[in-house]
Amino acid sequence: MKLASLKHGRDGRLVVVSRDLTRATDAFIVVPTLQRALDEWERYAPALEALAEQLEHGSVPSFRFHEHDCAAPLPRAYARRHAAAWPAYPALLRQAAGAEAPAGEAAPLRHAASDAFLGPRDPLAHDDPAASLDLSAGLAVVTGDVPRGADAAAAAGAVRLVALVAEVIRHDRLRPDGLDLDGAEAPALAASLSPVAVTPDELGEAWRDGALHRKLLVSRNGKTLGCPESGADLGHSLVALVAEAARHRALGAGTIVSAGPVSNRGIDGGPGRAAAEGGAGHACLAEARAAEALTSGWARTPYLAAGDRFRIEMKDAGGHSIFGAIEHDVAG
Amino acid sequence: MKLASLKHGRDGRLVVVSRDLTRATDAFIVVPTLQRALDEWERYAPALEALAEQLEHGSVPSFRFHEHDCAAPLPRAYARRHAAAWPAYPALLRQAAGAEAPAGEAAPLRHAASDAFLGPRDPLAHDDPAASLDLSAGLAVVTGDVPRGADAAAAAGAVRLVALVAEVIRHDRLRPDGLDLDGAEAPALAASLSPVAVTPDELGEAWRDGALHRKLLVSRNGKTLGCPESGADLGHSLVALVAEAARHRALGAGTIVSAGPVSNRGIDGGPGRAAAEGGAGHACLAEARAAEALTSGWARTPYLAAGDRFRIEMKDAGGHSIFGAIEHDVAG
Repeated sequence: MKLASLKHGRDGRLVVVSRDLTRATDAFIVVPTLQRALDEWERYAPALEALAEQLEHGSVPSFRFHEHDCAAPLPRAYARRHAAAWPAYPALLRQAAGAEAPAGEAAPLRHAASDAFLGPRDPLAHDDPAASLDLSAGLAVVTGDVPRGADAAAAAGAVRLVALVAEVIRHDRLRPDGLDLDGAEAPALAASLSPVAVTPDELGEAWRDGALHRKLLVSRNGKTLGCPESGADLGHSLVALVAEAARHRALGAGTIVSAGPVSNRGIDGGPGRAAAEGGAGHACLAEARAAEALTSGWARTPYLAAGDRFRIEMKDAGGHSIFGAIEHDVAG
Repeated sequence: MKLASLKHGRDGRLVVVSRDLTRATDAFIVVPTLQRALDEWERYAPALEALAEQLEHGSVPSFRFHEHDCAAPLPRAYARRHAAAWPAYPALLRQAAGAEAPAGEAAPLRHAASDAFLGPRDPLAHDDPAASLDLSAGLAVVTGDVPRGADAAAAAGAVRLVALVAEVIRHDRLRPDGLDLDGAEAPALAASLSPVAVTPDELGEAWRDGALHRKLLVSRNGKTLGCPESGADLGHSLVALVAEAARHRALGAGTIVSAGPVSNRGIDGGPGRAAAEGGAGHACLAEARAAEALTSGWARTPYLAAGDRFRIEMKDAGGHSIFGAIEHDVAG
């Protein structure tokens, strides 16, 4: 099934969305918010699934679904852990900066803000001319309760929903090692989720080996920035990240485990070609700039500027949007 | 007023507690959980204050308050930012490890887990013999909504509640720079809050300049480990940390900003004397060990072991417990 939260108060108003994203029906008669559904998933999920079936058959009152009316599916969550799970991204940024690779794991999880996701069509404020603002496009899963030390099978079984995620990052605040200039962690200013979150069974064959295998379509002002394959060049699958997040402590229902940006290696293991040259391109501006700097010595792609529109979407094998689109206009 | 959440479901059952912590009355008739009270503080706080007054006068039904029945006041929160706001602590640890001070700010805020606070009397699992387990004692504030870029006055006005905090840390996973061995942030395995959270007005003169000015009493197995003055040797006050946390993004109601461990400098600016020698001692075991290593060449104080009891409390000028005690027994 596909779920969304329409803008309403701090936690939104849960709706069930049709597979083709054209219609929705209120879930209020079952449970008013997604967090409460996740808190007692075994109790509420069957009734929500029944609503989804009735919606497909037209046997329940419904209304036209507008992605613009959406908050994030979980407008605020109690926990988020994020990792750069596609190692080509940090490798490229380090290479362009002439920095050494850190010892240890490629994709450490960090605690990330989860208390105020932007709506998928909310404008991005860009009021600091010194800020090198970027959007990083990736994937997220929403978990149920995951016991401490859960194995991969338990982690896979705890994935309740899958969504797209975008992180707003200020690159002028980053050192090559990914830390803030002040020594704190990378300052993701904000994050957003796709309008719709879907249960793994909706993804069919594209959801396998703990990962989602589809191209992530990223564009800026209507021009493709990248279309990297999310199932390729993974250092850690989403399910492996859930298990890693639960290694030392249990995860509560509604925990978001996110990963991004999606990043594919070039054929020779190097930067890979830009989307305009037929390559997979990039799912964030910083990576495009690093690739340009390495191949031509000049980072041509500018960071976000007022007036820009940044769009992130993923389509199924039939060409239909799975999650709806994250689309942020940059406001000056 | 003083508020607590009795153990009940995922979010506890909000109660108003008497000033002397002996009696409590159900807040359910006003609002069932602390998060919901914080979400609409202007609406609910006056009625909760009225309940608190009635409780003091014995004009409302009440029951005996047991700290053992408590969950954390906010059993799960949407956000927590934590800083080592007393610079003597990181300075001592670095000095003992022979590590250099990092460039930049002394107390960067990090995102910290807030989704599952331990109850103040819950046992601590210690099932990994390789783990150097420590408890770090500090202070926390719970905020209302704080707009992005709020100044110190706005940050001060947004402090809704003050509480004690304890973080469970695995020091064998830490490098001298405070990062995890894998390159991720310091792995606080768990955290707990005092049984009771109090509004700043309950603290009187002890709450000034954005900080709480009282001794934090920390003991292990009944012997004082430290009694550092929480208003002294502060790099950043709690209110300054709230403003810093809101520098780049707004904070939502119920955000926890925590700081610790409380740490005083010695008279000569050095490690300071142990509590057993009449000094302020230490609010965590790692700092006690670092001080011992620096002064005698031998870190005598062992990390936590099964059977240990670790207690954290703060008393008012009359010797009465302000927040109740965090007291964790270490289970093997």
